[in-house]
Amino acid sequence: MALTLYWGSGSPFSWRVQLALEHKGLEYESQLLHFDKQEHQSPQMLKLNPRGRVPVLKDGDYVVFESVAILYFLDLKYPQQPIFGSSPEEAGVIMRVICEFQAYAEPSLIKITSAVFAGKVADGIEELTDAMHVVAREARTIEGRLSKEPWIVGTGYSATDMVIFPWIQLLRRALDRPAAAELGARFLPMERNYPALARWIGRIEALPGYERTYPPHWRHT
Amino acid sequence: MALTLYWGSGSPFSWRVQLALEHKGLEYESQLLHFDKQEHQSPQMLKLNPRGRVPVLKDGDYVVFESVAILYFLDLKYPQQPIFGSSPEEAGVIMRVICEFQAYAEPSLIKITSAVFAGKVADGIEELTDAMHVVAREARTIEGRLSKEPWIVGTGYSATDMVIFPWIQLLRRALDRPAAAELGARFLPMERNYPALARWIGRIEALPGYERTYPPHWRHT
Repeated sequence: MALTLYWGSGSPFSWRVQLALEHKGLEYESQLLHFDKQEHQSPQMLKLNPRGRVPVLKDGDYVVFESVAILYFLDLKYPQQPIFGSSPEEAGVIMRVICEFQAYAEPSLIKITSAVFAGKVADGIEELTDAMHVVAREARTIEGRLSKEPWIVGTGYSATDMVIFPWIQLLRRALDRPAAAELGARFLPMERNYPALARWIGRIEALPGYERTYPPHWRHT
Repeated sequence: MALTLYWGSGSPFSWRVQLALEHKGLEYESQLLHFDKQEHQSPQMLKLNPRGRVPVLKDGDYVVFESVAILYFLDLKYPQQPIFGSSPEEAGVIMRVICEFQAYAEPSLIKITSAVFAGKVADGIEELTDAMHVVAREARTIEGRLSKEPWIVGTGYSATDMVIFPWIQLLRRALDRPAAAELGARFLPMERNYPALARWIGRIEALPGYERTYPPHWRHT
């Protein structure tokens, strides 16, 4: 098998690539690394990515990391089922919304989910509340898009959906924790507060191969 | 003229796009917006980009913003003088190094340059010193690449160079201020501390059309 993906369970960055590989129907060798055993920082992994981060994709002898770069490489190398649209104009919007998400939503999402999973919500509640306002504003924009179209950009499932979806799932999981009840009060349940986003989540969950991408440790905890 | 670029003098994000347009030899209408007059937040500009940020590129009726998305669009629409390489593998590395720069260097660069130009170095000297350590580490990695090859990725001038160069120029300008002397002590002069980076800067400065991209207000102050 030519493709090998090194990934971590629950890593939103890894999940993006898994969604792309399934969508393109590409077979790949799955190398699940255990964060708790520091497997992503093993000498072997540091040789592939000196930053010791996942996901890392190997294609034969070629190595690429950083999730958006992996999506971009995959789409150029395996153009079936394109994920960056079918024209320069559509590709530009797909990449633009990805860049916006990374610049304006991701820092707040990292702040919130890190604090919740580290059990440190109370310590930084003011900063986290501000971060939730940012996230809610960005989610409102995406809600607006999804209330008109089934996918975030254009007419098909694209890299934009793949980049954003895992973060929404991770955020929901974080806000479901009792300690995050106050933070999540205006976000959850999504069916009420963000109905178009909730339907979009259902749409992705129903895609073929989705179950294979679901973080294995989330099934038990 | 089909292409119009809305940009701001000294905006590293704008500068990237100007470098790409010059490299590709594309004619464009240049719309310089004055930040001090809030021209980037005018009703007309907010219609193009609701975030009120530059650069914004118009190509006929099509509008795209976020600098990396603009570079990506330009390369798909105007493939002459490619800036994302000539193979999926090369493209993947170009995008990977851009993503790494955005994730690991840019937040610290924003912190340092904002503080210096706002005259607030003393207030946050500890945090800024940490940020300089991060920047120095990332610069060291790029120095390593440039000590072997004339361009950061692959054999040609690419989007990676265009993304990183304006930030290095802005950083040098910031660290040249007397208030930043301590922060910049181990960075400047670049000729001594980062000789390969300094030569790379000279190489870009010598490119045809470079002078047209130079921030106009930097000539006087």
